[in-house]
Amino acid sequence: MTIRAAAKIAARPTLRPFVAVTKQFIAGALTPRDFLEDCLGEFANREKHVHAFVTHDIERARVAADASTTRWKAGKPASPIDGMPMGIKDIIETVDMPTEMGSPLFAGWRSDKDAACVSALRQAGAVILGKTVTTEFAATEPRGTRNPWNLEHTPGGSSSGSAAAVGCGMVSAALGTQVIGSTIRPASYCGCFGYKPSVNAINREGCHDYQSQSCTGIIAASLADTWQVAHEIVSRVGGDAGTPGLVGPDRCPAPAKPKRLAVLDTAGWKDTSYGLQESMVVMHRDLRETGVEIETRVTDAKIEEVETAIADAHALSNKINSFEVRWFLRGARDRDVQKLSKVMQTRLAESEALTLDDYRAALIERARIRARYAALAGSFDGCITLSAPGGAPKGLKSTGNSQFAVPASLLGVPALSLPVINENGLPLGLQVLGFFNEDARAFALSRWLYNQIMYPSTMGA
Amino acid sequence: MTIRAAAKIAARPTLRPFVAVTKQFIAGALTPRDFLEDCLGEFANREKHVHAFVTHDIERARVAADASTTRWKAGKPASPIDGMPMGIKDIIETVDMPTEMGSPLFAGWRSDKDAACVSALRQAGAVILGKTVTTEFAATEPRGTRNPWNLEHTPGGSSSGSAAAVGCGMVSAALGTQVIGSTIRPASYCGCFGYKPSVNAINREGCHDYQSQSCTGIIAASLADTWQVAHEIVSRVGGDAGTPGLVGPDRCPAPAKPKRLAVLDTAGWKDTSYGLQESMVVMHRDLRETGVEIETRVTDAKIEEVETAIADAHALSNKINSFEVRWFLRGARDRDVQKLSKVMQTRLAESEALTLDDYRAALIERARIRARYAALAGSFDGCITLSAPGGAPKGLKSTGNSQFAVPASLLGVPALSLPVINENGLPLGLQVLGFFNEDARAFALSRWLYNQIMYPSTMGA
Repeated sequence: MTIRAAAKIAARPTLRPFVAVTKQFIAGALTPRDFLEDCLGEFANREKHVHAFVTHDIERARVAADASTTRWKAGKPASPIDGMPMGIKDIIETVDMPTEMGSPLFAGWRSDKDAACVSALRQAGAVILGKTVTTEFAATEPRGTRNPWNLEHTPGGSSSGSAAAVGCGMVSAALGTQVIGSTIRPASYCGCFGYKPSVNAINREGCHDYQSQSCTGIIAASLADTWQVAHEIVSRVGGDAGTPGLVGPDRCPAPAKPKRLAVLDTAGWKDTSYGLQESMVVMHRDLRETGVEIETRVTDAKIEEVETAIADAHALSNKINSFEVRWFLRGARDRDVQKLSKVMQTRLAESEALTLDDYRAALIERARIRARYAALAGSFDGCITLSAPGGAPKGLKSTGNSQFAVPASLLGVPALSLPVINENGLPLGLQVLGFFNEDARAFALSRWLYNQIMYPSTMGA
Repeated sequence: MTIRAAAKIAARPTLRPFVAVTKQFIAGALTPRDFLEDCLGEFANREKHVHAFVTHDIERARVAADASTTRWKAGKPASPIDGMPMGIKDIIETVDMPTEMGSPLFAGWRSDKDAACVSALRQAGAVILGKTVTTEFAATEPRGTRNPWNLEHTPGGSSSGSAAAVGCGMVSAALGTQVIGSTIRPASYCGCFGYKPSVNAINREGCHDYQSQSCTGIIAASLADTWQVAHEIVSRVGGDAGTPGLVGPDRCPAPAKPKRLAVLDTAGWKDTSYGLQESMVVMHRDLRETGVEIETRVTDAKIEEVETAIADAHALSNKINSFEVRWFLRGARDRDVQKLSKVMQTRLAESEALTLDDYRAALIERARIRARYAALAGSFDGCITLSAPGGAPKGLKSTGNSQFAVPASLLGVPALSLPVINENGLPLGLQVLGFFNEDARAFALSRWLYNQIMYPSTMGA
């Protein structure tokens, strides 16, 4: 690989994988409390600069870590993530902390319950350090979180705090959500692994999350951590009601070398730099040299059809999302318009122009595009693209460009961001798109790709 | 018809239809404020006995009715239900009143927002008198509401207060929900029209409602009122996100005489009295005399297949519902088990025995049963059955038998309860089941049946 691995850059924030160290808990060489204290050290050093958390509770986390330590010492951990320090995006409800949704309208608001996913994580023994910063109502208005790789740059959004906290090892994993690019993009910008599941695959109940293509996402320090968090949630509370939920093994699927991959440009390609485009071409060449067939819109008609279909993914997603969240924004405006950002006021005004028939037509169009994408499944093991057009942009007023992330949202398919690219000293993700309800296969492919790119000399390609 | 119409019994609670009187608003003969005052008179007389409301706000309702009066006088009503007095089941969120869900765990709890349906109703000009009593978490534990037809009898549940309030004219319509029989059954017991839509057809967001076969239901004083409330919600906020929502005309569909109807016994038939069974047979004969073909499980093999498929509708529904709500009940238990009813504690314990694989198998079984029912659509205009095995049973400790109501819940199809039967002085509904997303057709059929049964002499049959 000619692209330097993010993890190899010296003096950078580092991820703190959890599942891989649990064998030390079993061996007695380390405890969940020790692990938490390392996280808290990072928290003490960085949080004052990064602002990843809205609310945190160190003492409660220590109590939970001690309970986990007791379970591991007794040889009875509640799950492979028992003791994992985690953050919860602040649009996801927690019984013991407010859920403010990045909005002054909900300052101090309490749901008096845990969301389904939080309930499951507590059962699995996760140690919840706090609620992580979200943009206003998980949309676009930032709330002050900074990128741990460079404090003058955005961490991305809307799962800003989750990505920032994981990106510098304050926690091993955090929950996010994604309806446009809110998990994949911040994961990419902060050098984390990011996972947006198949739509409905992780139970969303008890979240401020009312949109049909929205998903609970996971931002984590390793693929093993990512899979395990998803698995521990779904095995306890399922996917969204009425759906089968994430299907797959108890542990992260083993790496699987693909036979054939589709490269997607997406509408984001035009926004990437020439240098990055060149790097991607080199990456594709390197992958071909391992024996994987790599096709593009130029070489494969079906890919070209998909590219055409997703060219306006952002506009179509916005239309669907706007209609679906309109009732909520109306209520927010009527309570106190001064506490609703200008960008949300504008979005509401635009959505008021939509009719139910417009919305129904948009759903039919989305279904048509999904069917077109699904037709790739017979010929390809998955798709690859970037997670963003580059590293995190400078400035805190925007959460960045979501053109690469939105297709998987519109398509409802699993997407993973792998932190394998470095552009001018900032991390950038390679994005893997899978097929609907074949999330485990997307993980197996992602593991192979990650290993191949990061450790090519050990792969014997 | 040999069955006496409920509405003809003297000295009984009476319904207070709204849409039909709005022509008087236009003519200047009546105002929404006058209409509300009539409701408030009933409220003053009956509420102390009936206990239909958890929270009410008479002064706020008067302000809303006056605003509506101004709009009608200006010739600019917000909708055909502008000024309609309504109740909102207390599992549905309201920005201006607590949402207590029939549970001491949520005493005084505030969502700080309106549910989607409430937001739409306010836009349409509805006058919200208050929050109506629900059983605990819309399940089975009653909360003291009495049947206005006989205070010693249950109003049914879980939408107890909504049915009781509509049944005696304190409001023209009220929102309920149904996952087993929570709209159709109380509507039947209280002599109201009840409507459980096709699953997902009315937006449920902002409700304590996490189950895949659950629906927002409407209990109202006429079919016109019922349709209009549903239409005004869906035209403003759609169905559940990602679905087309209720499809149909701006006003209640015109009566349509069916060609062929299927009679469903359901598992409830064995619980009905001999006298009631005989009355139903007479009703079927009377309908045949109008030229409608009436088939039963004895005369039609497809109906027998459906009867067999829905025989265990209650058990399968309970399995699915239990898994889906388990995470919520776990949280309620962990907060304060003393504030969770024994019946809910037992339900939680039973649900803990279920695995995700059990749940997935139940979803597959439900889909199989739905497909079997859908096969009737080609041969029948709809199905008829009872809404309950009889009038409301005596006692307030149980909300009654739901065997007749549960099939439509499991099937996800529209169901209407028509108050056309009287059994020993108590009302009882005839239930009409339609086909998925053909709710307008079910209304047209229901209107014809209602007119035919209540006013046969005018039908020229």
